[in-house]
Amino acid sequence: MRPLLHEIRRNPLLWLLAFVPIVLAAEHLAPEAQTALFVLSVLAIVPLAALLSHATESVAAKTGDTVGGLLNATLGNLTELVIALAALRAGQYMLVKASIAGAVVTNTLFMLGASFLLGGLKHHVQEFNRATARIQAGLLFLATVALLIPSAVSQADSAPAAAFAQKLSLGLSVLLIVAYALGLVFTLKTHRELFVSAAHAEGEDEAPWPLGLALATLAGVTVLVALVSEVFVESVQVAAVELGMTPAFVGFIVVALVGAAAEMASAFSGARKNRLDLSVGIALGSAAQIALFVAPVLVLLSYVIGPSPMSLQFWPGAVVMVLIATITANLVTTGGRSTWFVGVVVLEVYFIFAMTLYLLPPGLR
Amino acid sequence: MRPLLHEIRRNPLLWLLAFVPIVLAAEHLAPEAQTALFVLSVLAIVPLAALLSHATESVAAKTGDTVGGLLNATLGNLTELVIALAALRAGQYMLVKASIAGAVVTNTLFMLGASFLLGGLKHHVQEFNRATARIQAGLLFLATVALLIPSAVSQADSAPAAAFAQKLSLGLSVLLIVAYALGLVFTLKTHRELFVSAAHAEGEDEAPWPLGLALATLAGVTVLVALVSEVFVESVQVAAVELGMTPAFVGFIVVALVGAAAEMASAFSGARKNRLDLSVGIALGSAAQIALFVAPVLVLLSYVIGPSPMSLQFWPGAVVMVLIATITANLVTTGGRSTWFVGVVVLEVYFIFAMTLYLLPPGLR
Amino acid sequence: MRPLLHEIRRNPLLWLLAFVPIVLAAEHLAPEAQTALFVLSVLAIVPLAALLSHATESVAAKTGDTVGGLLNATLGNLTELVIALAALRAGQYMLVKASIAGAVVTNTLFMLGASFLLGGLKHHVQEFNRATARIQAGLLFLATVALLIPSAVSQADSAPAAAFAQKLSLGLSVLLIVAYALGLVFTLKTHRELFVSAAHAEGEDEAPWPLGLALATLAGVTVLVALVSEVFVESVQVAAVELGMTPAFVGFIVVALVGAAAEMASAFSGARKNRLDLSVGIALGSAAQIALFVAPVLVLLSYVIGPSPMSLQFWPGAVVMVLIATITANLVTTGGRSTWFVGVVVLEVYFIFAMTLYLLPPGLR
Repeated sequence: MRPLLHEIRRNPLLWLLAFVPIVLAAEHLAPEAQTALFVLSVLAIVPLAALLSHATESVAAKTGDTVGGLLNATLGNLTELVIALAALRAGQYMLVKASIAGAVVTNTLFMLGASFLLGGLKHHVQEFNRATARIQAGLLFLATVALLIPSAVSQADSAPAAAFAQKLSLGLSVLLIVAYALGLVFTLKTHRELFVSAAHAEGEDEAPWPLGLALATLAGVTVLVALVSEVFVESVQVAAVELGMTPAFVGFIVVALVGAAAEMASAFSGARKNRLDLSVGIALGSAAQIALFVAPVLVLLSYVIGPSPMSLQFWPGAVVMVLIATITANLVTTGGRSTWFVGVVVLEVYFIFAMTLYLLPPGLR
Repeated sequence: MRPLLHEIRRNPLLWLLAFVPIVLAAEHLAPEAQTALFVLSVLAIVPLAALLSHATESVAAKTGDTVGGLLNATLGNLTELVIALAALRAGQYMLVKASIAGAVVTNTLFMLGASFLLGGLKHHVQEFNRATARIQAGLLFLATVALLIPSAVSQADSAPAAAFAQKLSLGLSVLLIVAYALGLVFTLKTHRELFVSAAHAEGEDEAPWPLGLALATLAGVTVLVALVSEVFVESVQVAAVELGMTPAFVGFIVVALVGAAAEMASAFSGARKNRLDLSVGIALGSAAQIALFVAPVLVLLSYVIGPSPMSLQFWPGAVVMVLIATITANLVTTGGRSTWFVGVVVLEVYFIFAMTLYLLPPGLR
Repeated sequence: MRPLLHEIRRNPLLWLLAFVPIVLAAEHLAPEAQTALFVLSVLAIVPLAALLSHATESVAAKTGDTVGGLLNATLGNLTELVIALAALRAGQYMLVKASIAGAVVTNTLFMLGASFLLGGLKHHVQEFNRATARIQAGLLFLATVALLIPSAVSQADSAPAAAFAQKLSLGLSVLLIVAYALGLVFTLKTHRELFVSAAHAEGEDEAPWPLGLALATLAGVTVLVALVSEVFVESVQVAAVELGMTPAFVGFIVVALVGAAAEMASAFSGARKNRLDLSVGIALGSAAQIALFVAPVLVLLSYVIGPSPMSLQFWPGAVVMVLIATITANLVTTGGRSTWFVGVVVLEVYFIFAMTLYLLPPGLR
């Protein structure tokens, strides 16, 4: 337990853990105070996500490069997955989809752009490993095509169209998971030498926890995230209205920022330390993981735990945003160099999206 | 005749030539057995396309670099042209357009992706001439813009819209043929030194036939392809339904794979021999030729031999697929390097399209 | 005055200044001869634009690098701004928007493409500073996203949709101007060493005028442009119909070519002298300035001088054209090299747009 306590003392973000018991208690005492519950659950998820991410990395560090890489690659977005599962079980497919698209866009634009900006304010010109960036950007492009095609090919809103979208989503999910798995073979096995710098940088930063503690934390915190996520999912709709935010804005922006808070802390600190490889790897790797692994897994799981099967067919506006985010990532990473202004441009694209979703009246979607 | 017989003995693909008399006989004996005729005609076209391609290359080799390059560039997709002419004469404009778009997508994604994959499984990292790839990808981009604009600008389905689309298609066809011709001037004349490696690689592989034999083969086989194509075009619709395939899938995927079978054999063998220049040149060159030369020629010919003029206005889903294929080609060729995983990503994009078209109910187009 | 007279004698384009009094007189003598007034005003604007651009550069040269760069960057498209203001005051928002989109497309495709072609016909392969090109292409991309998102997210044609578009346009305008200002900080201050060659090339060409003359010319010519622009805006609609041109074609192509005539002269002469840096800088810099500075300023000014607020929501066809122009600019500038054929491809994309707009029946927009 000592490394855990040490970590909590060292990292002020983890002091927010106090909100975990508060939100769980509040849910029983005042189940109708939805806005308060929403705010409390957000405050509780952020430190849990940080712990989860630390525990995953510790397990990964103990189990060797390949298994560790695999673990990181499958559990790295456990928070997003658990939140989405809570929404899936509640049948809130709009929220699930908005949070998937929002996570891809937030990681690609906000996390990447802010890393470029923060790094660039300290360092004149920064370089990063293009191989990592290109492979992740390529995978993101593939996932975007998979999201784009169902809507592009059939705009009809009829029963056969829905059946078609459902069958297609199942097939696309399998294709995406296969691509993701082959991508792991490529980066962790056959061509690992191309990705050396990023992998090395990730390891040397913090002393990993002992395996037992890491596994126990992983299990315990996952349960806590699941409990808090349920409060979050139940309260988000009412709270959004009361806080004057559109549901689209909450799903796309707020949930995504909450889910990715822990990774952002790592990405930004890497950028300040002129280790942009790390930042780019976290931002694009996380986006690719959500698009090619979390999203299709949710589609498959919806057959088991959801009230009805979920499709991969997204709201056209979300598809356009994911598409633009992917193109942006491809454009800014071709050169392998970055300055503060590249960060500004990428962030502005994100602000355009955020402002649009904030102003969009719910009836217009 | 001896080189021809030698070629047939050497190349098992050509043994399928036996199906040419069989399909022509079957058409007279059992004209109502559409599915059987369809399968037989496919089996007969594949070896004819291989012969045609070999004969074209032999004529090209005998007539010197510039004329030869010109011949290769105009007759290289003779099979696709003859099949499309048969469909044009029958007034099946949907099939013509699906086969044009399908040929572009199949060459750009399937042929290129499979070349990358097959080459990458044998060689760790492969390099290719970026100049060739970029010029072809640029031409493809131009053609995609020409296909995209008519649909993007006018969605109306009225008489003036149709008249507008028709006039515009005529003008666009002329612009595309001019671009194609200037591209030949560029690659064969003013800047030929940039494209040396690919041109050289193509010549050294096989001993060319004598000119007389090559010309005779060219003429004779073209007639045979025309005859078999007619059987193919007549039977394809009924056969598709009986085989449980949508017309979109047949036009886009089956016809395109049949028409390009011979070039694929060359492209794949080049990739295995680490001569990726050759593979990329065949795949993208062929796609560019179909989009900038075959398609506009068909539009112009439709005024002469078709029942009514054909436009360049495509089904929006096909335009999106061509657009994505072009963007993919541009993204993967900028670096001039390839590994097996690049092939996987490109192939997956193709599989997404194929799966979508396979599942798409006919009523939803 | 002597440098002014010397300039007029040296530059035959300026002899067209004779049309300035002619058009102003004609407006009083024959206010109903709209087509004649249209032609005369076009002939009068071209030399005024040339003078304006020369005067701006002279002021810029006298005021040192940073202030000069700032002046060039804000007044460089004064002609376009004054024409658009005349249309804005007349409430002709369709014309304002068409001329904005048209200016972006014309600068990006026609000016850049013709520069590549003219330069490439004289020089085998030309190189240019990629840093300048990439930053401008990146800014263009950002502006395109801002134009794209309102239409992509809400297709509805209702009152709440209009209110949403209006509020969003205001916010987007602020975001774009901020991006433009930060871009100036980047190119003129923090990272100016990356852009040296282009800046240097611009200075050494012509002897600047004395500051007094330059300022007087700037003020006087701006007034003349404003007067002539009013004639132009009033006559353009009737004249278009009489000359057999669609309003879309006039706004997009004719107005844009007229407004950019002076810059084109500089860009083309730079390309012939193998100073492609200059040409690329003028073409893309001008396009970025219109998209990120002129367009949002017009939106903001519409609240003050227009009959009603103007939004940033464009006709979808125009958005597609701006998007394609931006992608084209990004594709052709990544390499930093150019040949005549690259110019042909870029020009053909422009001709595809021009032909489409020329043929498009007004009812189909």
